[in-house]
Amino acid sequence: MSEKGRLIVVSGPSGAGKSTVVFKAIEGRKDMCFSTSVTSRKARPGEVDGREYFFITRERFAEMIENDELLEHAEYVGNCYGTPRKFVEDKLAQGMNVVLDIEVQGARQVAGKMPDAVKIFVIPPTLDELKNRLEKRGTETEESIAGRLTRAREEYAEADFYDYIVVNDTVDEAARELNAILLAEKCRFQNRVQYLREI
Amino acid sequence: MSEKGRLIVVSGPSGAGKSTVVFKAIEGRKDMCFSTSVTSRKARPGEVDGREYFFITRERFAEMIENDELLEHAEYVGNCYGTPRKFVEDKLAQGMNVVLDIEVQGARQVAGKMPDAVKIFVIPPTLDELKNRLEKRGTETEESIAGRLTRAREEYAEADFYDYIVVNDTVDEAARELNAILLAEKCRFQNRVQYLREI
Repeated sequence: MSEKGRLIVVSGPSGAGKSTVVFKAIEGRKDMCFSTSVTSRKARPGEVDGREYFFITRERFAEMIENDELLEHAEYVGNCYGTPRKFVEDKLAQGMNVVLDIEVQGARQVAGKMPDAVKIFVIPPTLDELKNRLEKRGTETEESIAGRLTRAREEYAEADFYDYIVVNDTVDEAARELNAILLAEKCRFQNRVQYLREI
Repeated sequence: MSEKGRLIVVSGPSGAGKSTVVFKAIEGRKDMCFSTSVTSRKARPGEVDGREYFFITRERFAEMIENDELLEHAEYVGNCYGTPRKFVEDKLAQGMNVVLDIEVQGARQVAGKMPDAVKIFVIPPTLDELKNRLEKRGTETEESIAGRLTRAREEYAEADFYDYIVVNDTVDEAARELNAILLAEKCRFQNRVQYLREI
């Protein structure tokens, strides 16, 4: 397996079931992994550096931005989070497909720096179904559900730069779609044109 | 299944195993069929009108060209062959994916008239392997094998308008790629954007 891997950017509204679909899709696949982010926040008990996150200082974080060492970054509740370019590029060079589970704004940043990334938007079959799923969690207030639905509508409105839409009706079918997308991408003309150039 | 089907144009050098791959891919799928061509040649014993071909007169053939009723057409050893637009469009409207097994020149004609067609080029892993396969047939002279290899090189050189390349190393894997391409195409942003428009 000497082929270079692909960067797979996965976005979608909270409650669409992105992570479940991705975990199902990569189950048993040795050629796929998640990206590990860097963060300036302190490690919580039980968190391991390089597993949940790479834990770094604010100064190092600023330096990484400065040196263009991050594919994207954002601040959230006073802490910085980012995707380290070298980590991703090393995995890709090893032939791994790297999955980035990320919001639309971050996805746009990544796509700007990695134009070959496959961009996938995971959605529930309907917004009503999204509401059902959020309610079933039992941990969300009516207000936070309303907020998430508003956010989902905003994300839908700016989703037009994704290559694919995976509809998470059932997890198995959505995972099958995700894997089909990866295989089809391998077959795309520009990714296989070397077979024609042998002559 | 109210979705419209897709037209799938499959080309590739003689001996690449196109038909075997397609037959394997559509095995058991009720949403896929081959297109049936029209021809001006006489039906041979055992051939049924509408099964092997639609058998029509030269006059009717000329009329079909005139009325833009053919997606592509060509003459071969004095007989005319063509792909009837209405047959294809009716199947697509019924939600069927229609496969056209066709040479590069015909594929270009079809793509001009049906820009949504998915264009797939099926090739053997190497030209040496193509040579082996042609030799194994036992029915080809050395001269005809040389001719087919030259033709394959010509087709490779003009294959750049295909969307995908399927490498027929093993039939099972190639059929899996073909099916993955079809599923991934269903997921492409422009084919699913209606899900986002519901809101």
